Amino acid sequence: MRAFLIVGNKAVTKPFNLNDLAGGAGRMDLLCRCVAQALFISHGIRKDVEVYLLLLGPPEPPKAILIKGSEVRYMAPDERNIAGIIRKALSVEAGKQWHKSSPGVYVAKKGLEELLDEIPYRIVYLREDGEDIREVAPQIYDVLFVLGDHIGLGEDDEKIVVEKAWKIVSVSPLSLQADQCIVIVHYELDRITGTS
Amino acid sequence: MRAFLIVGNKAVTKPFNLNDLAGGAGRMDLLCRCVAQALFISHGIRKDVEVYLLLLGPPEPPKAILIKGSEVRYMAPDERNIAGIIRKALSVEAGKQWHKSSPGVYVAKKGLEELLDEIPYRIVYLREDGEDIREVAPQIYDVLFVLGDHIGLGEDDEKIVVEKAWKIVSVSPLSLQADQCIVIVHYELDRITGTS
Ligand SMILES: C[S@@+](CC[C@H](N)C(=O)[O-])C[C@H]1O[C@@H](n2cnc3c(N)ncnc32)[C@H](O)[C@@H]1O
Ligand SMILES: C[S@@+](CC[C@H](N)C(=O)[O-])C[C@H]1O[C@@H](n2cnc3c(N)ncnc32)[C@H](O)[C@@H]1O
Repeated sequence: MRAFLIVGNKAVTKPFNLNDLAGGAGRMDLLCRCVAQALFISHGIRKDVEVYLLLLGPPEPPKAILIKGSEVRYMAPDERNIAGIIRKALSVEAGKQWHKSSPGVYVAKKGLEELLDEIPYRIVYLREDGEDIREVAPQIYDVLFVLGDHIGLGEDDEKIVVEKAWKIVSVSPLSLQADQCIVIVHYELDRITGTS
Repeated sequence: MRAFLIVGNKAVTKPFNLNDLAGGAGRMDLLCRCVAQALFISHGIRKDVEVYLLLLGPPEPPKAILIKGSEVRYMAPDERNIAGIIRKALSVEAGKQWHKSSPGVYVAKKGLEELLDEIPYRIVYLREDGEDIREVAPQIYDVLFVLGDHIGLGEDDEKIVVEKAWKIVSVSPLSLQADQCIVIVHYELDRITGTS
């Protein structure tokens, strides 16, 4: 399994306007691109991928959304389509347990620490100054990759992640957008497995 | 210089509805993602990148759009923002010469063959069965990478590209979405140059 957790520091926790993803929805555009890059290949969806979004924006943070590649249906890779699916998840009541909002999509009222404790994979924190992905890729399977959004992780959140992380890994000599990091992780792992 | 040319077989050649990029606009969403992945890094734009979009959809194909990373301003990486910039380019009169529609963005009435003859870089056609990018990356500089959209290149277009291509290159053991291929090209080249 390849799992990704992206922290949306400003991403709103209630239904939002699909025409204002980058503004009023708190950079939901960026989370939508992360979902697309984690799940899609040319003509299909990677079944062995789980994407977790942690939304920390108003009015009811935190909320977590889980999308399972093995179950998801009727998803297209464009931002608006994925945003519609997230929006639907935010319109249902979120409790402590995962609640299905559409096929393969779940929502719950969970914070970072709880999520990290519950997800049964080793944790890799993606950060610019980490070990080279190319060196560690052969050891990587059943891993949760944790990424920040446009402002990275907040100080407290980073402390939590670093403490639980198996490794800190870098995917480029440049600082990239989170969705680009996801593409590179898949690429390096696909080169080893020959598939996903 | 790193240049990318993406062929949009159905992409419309007149202003379109920003709320229907994946539908009525002929998969304009996909071209917008290619532009974003070609130009953006974490907090900025790659200045040494040129993106060419070839739009082959109704009503007035072909039209070409050129976006220069060194000149572009006021661009955000979300699909809607980039679509707005493309839409503006499609709203100005397109002639045989490049015409500027906004900072760093140009439009012209040009077809595939004309574009390939005019762009002064060696041509690399990205295709699943090509040589491994990792083998050829050290030789790559001042290259135009040519990619298809969700349906690849049409038969006649592919003949033209193959004939003019310096190399055919593969970027993954999987068939990927065009924007993912662009991320991988940058990644492999960044690893060599240490930057872009
Ligand atoms: C846009 S970057 C964050 C930008 C920057 N850290 C900041 O503080 O403004 C988004 C996320 O992508 C990941 N990232 C970006 N470049 C990376 C790299 N070269 N290696 C590993 N992860 C990277 C990190 O998880 C980061 O939090
Ligand atoms: C979605 S793919 C096209 C799908 C497929 N060729 C078809 O005919 O339906 C879009 C474009 O990405 C590029 N591409 C996809 N996977 C690639 C790979 N593994 N190596 C190189 N280029 C690739 C090609 O240029 C392709 O035309």
